[in-house]
Amino acid sequence: MKAEIITIGDEILIGQVVNSNAAWIADALTGLGIQVTRHISIADDFDEIVQILMETESRADLVFLTGGLGPTSDDITKKTLAEYFNCQLVENEEALDRIKAYLSSRNVEMNKLNRAQAMLPDNCIIIPNRYGTAAGMWFTKNDIQYLSMPGVPYEMQSMMSGYILPRLKKQYKLPAIVHRTLLVQGIAESHLASLLEEYEKTLPPEVKLAYLPSPGRVRLRLSSGGDDEKTVKAIVQEQVGRLVPYIPDGHFFGYEDEQLERIVGTLLQRNKKTLATAESCTGGNIAHMITSVPGSSKYFLGSVVAYSNYVKKSVLGVKEASLRDHGAVSRQVVEQMARGIIKRYGADYAIATSGIAGPDGGTPEKPVGTTWITVASAEKTESALFNLGEDRGRNIQKASMTGLNMLRKLITEENC
Amino acid sequence: MKAEIITIGDEILIGQVVNSNAAWIADALTGLGIQVTRHISIADDFDEIVQILMETESRADLVFLTGGLGPTSDDITKKTLAEYFNCQLVENEEALDRIKAYLSSRNVEMNKLNRAQAMLPDNCIIIPNRYGTAAGMWFTKNDIQYLSMPGVPYEMQSMMSGYILPRLKKQYKLPAIVHRTLLVQGIAESHLASLLEEYEKTLPPEVKLAYLPSPGRVRLRLSSGGDDEKTVKAIVQEQVGRLVPYIPDGHFFGYEDEQLERIVGTLLQRNKKTLATAESCTGGNIAHMITSVPGSSKYFLGSVVAYSNYVKKSVLGVKEASLRDHGAVSRQVVEQMARGIIKRYGADYAIATSGIAGPDGGTPEKPVGTTWITVASAEKTESALFNLGEDRGRNIQKASMTGLNMLRKLITEENC
Repeated sequence: MKAEIITIGDEILIGQVVNSNAAWIADALTGLGIQVTRHISIADDFDEIVQILMETESRADLVFLTGGLGPTSDDITKKTLAEYFNCQLVENEEALDRIKAYLSSRNVEMNKLNRAQAMLPDNCIIIPNRYGTAAGMWFTKNDIQYLSMPGVPYEMQSMMSGYILPRLKKQYKLPAIVHRTLLVQGIAESHLASLLEEYEKTLPPEVKLAYLPSPGRVRLRLSSGGDDEKTVKAIVQEQVGRLVPYIPDGHFFGYEDEQLERIVGTLLQRNKKTLATAESCTGGNIAHMITSVPGSSKYFLGSVVAYSNYVKKSVLGVKEASLRDHGAVSRQVVEQMARGIIKRYGADYAIATSGIAGPDGGTPEKPVGTTWITVASAEKTESALFNLGEDRGRNIQKASMTGLNMLRKLITEENC
Repeated sequence: MKAEIITIGDEILIGQVVNSNAAWIADALTGLGIQVTRHISIADDFDEIVQILMETESRADLVFLTGGLGPTSDDITKKTLAEYFNCQLVENEEALDRIKAYLSSRNVEMNKLNRAQAMLPDNCIIIPNRYGTAAGMWFTKNDIQYLSMPGVPYEMQSMMSGYILPRLKKQYKLPAIVHRTLLVQGIAESHLASLLEEYEKTLPPEVKLAYLPSPGRVRLRLSSGGDDEKTVKAIVQEQVGRLVPYIPDGHFFGYEDEQLERIVGTLLQRNKKTLATAESCTGGNIAHMITSVPGSSKYFLGSVVAYSNYVKKSVLGVKEASLRDHGAVSRQVVEQMARGIIKRYGADYAIATSGIAGPDGGTPEKPVGTTWITVASAEKTESALFNLGEDRGRNIQKASMTGLNMLRKLITEENC
């Protein structure tokens, strides 16, 4: 069962938009044991779309298309598919009713462009759109399934999860592909590869190990495939058990798409503890990561982003003398920030950061990337110094991930 | 001059990583007037890579490949290319010296895996890697150029900007493709399309208009192509001048890849003013956006993220009675937050937010998405109520963008 993912849109092709849809669809299909063999992006162009449809006929069993279904004149996917699959566009009553209901729930009047979106091919299955006015279309030709969806990510995702995936599950008996991903914080890819060299030599040939690095984190993915899901799962799970001991203590923090901010949130909630952050170089990013998690108001009190020394002193109680003698990027200052936020906000735990995010502000003694991070509780204050490199965005991300992982360890040590 | 972008990597194909490299390369090539005709992602697989290389021979003049050059065993691009282009891998002295220098600058000892990265094809141009150990490779066959680069984004970007693009510019005389993008905040795509319907009817056929929506923002892209760059630029620029008056006042905020947080930063710096934020529902995201901009410490003092009512009262001076009578999500509270942060941090301007980001916390009277935003200066306090929809992440992003755009208008009104 091979699938290709076709993204249609000039904006993708010329690089104005990053293609997140292909990743989302690929992840969903992989989870079902469907092998994704290609992602292709092409222009909003009749000939290109037809050319790709012809190519996929000899390669794929499932073809997922996104994009080009909007109400505006640059969207030509629907017309092209109607012509390729030899059918007429007719006004679809159910689709029209859904468009009307959707617009009226938003107090928007229907215009001609919206109405035209109810004109749909007469020989395909119409896939309802819960979050927009562009319907999806499911064509079948020579046993190949073609699924055309809007390019707006949450509209496409809702069609996939709510309609397409459940039907594909029923329709096909699929071989099992099992992935298991281990999340590692604070060890660079090449260092990790050295640490795992001996382990890799012992990997059976049917199991693959891949390294997926991103700022502050490396994901290790073990994969295998076969007919019997239970057997494949057991093979992969055995390797997980063998791999974990090779990762130095405190760096392995979770599995799959777990996020540090969610793990920390769960730990806080389980132990009925609260958190506040005092951020200089991370500029509010740790607070942003934590508050991206639904329900975070239960354990997160807030943050003081202290970019200026005046705020560090007046709100967090950092001593003038510490700033003068050691500088804002110092153990003394970051620890006072952490103690200060705990006191000011009445929090059980704190993360504090102070560093030189760059590109300016570096000195020979404290180059760009120099970062002090403190995590603190009622009893403990633990600080560490890092050099996180030269790129501002990556620095902020790495410092945030490191702070969250230090806090994860501290909460785990102090609680269950 | 047609280009295809090939991304090699299981992690892309199964959707564990979003393909941001293809977008970056496409944007860079489009800027040079090179037409990008396809992006393709395939597995780390010998046969697949060879298959794609054969296909591109009949379609493309330039083939950009990323990925599969790392030190680990799943990276097979280099070996495959050597075989496809009929050459040997030999130890390249210059590359080895660069790897040694790179590692020693990071106090890392060279291991076998690093050393193996100096084994390179003997019939291609070696492209130096400033930020890593994997060299790039430039092959030529039948007048087609093949450029293989690492998948790590900043390593690839540095090779493109520092080496490949300058050489391509010299090597080819390219037709002009001109894009001009207008940025619009706070109007939904379909509403904007209605507003521009009359305008679109008058567009000459050689100019294309595309709508590129993302949370809180729609980008309008005008494009045209031709032999003479000056003529094409003039045609597109004329359309920009005709389009702008159709966009309602205050919503059009910039061009191309300008970011609201940078525009606001420039306005603050130019007028020697400072900013602080008091964030509830945005949870520090506005501070994070502002501090992502290098040099923001010159005008940004910091933030109080006030998730708890205790912090709203004790740090920002919000009145107990206002919280009790109107709730945290109310005009009264958000205006007190804005006045409070101005006073506490000594700022010239403030943005304050209070809303129900969801998915929990909504009521019939104040459903999820209900958001109050205030911008304030010494003299003025301007507030507005929004309903931003049901998705937490999009809510936070939309509220942040809206707050920044409200501030942009206020600073512009009060200054030059």
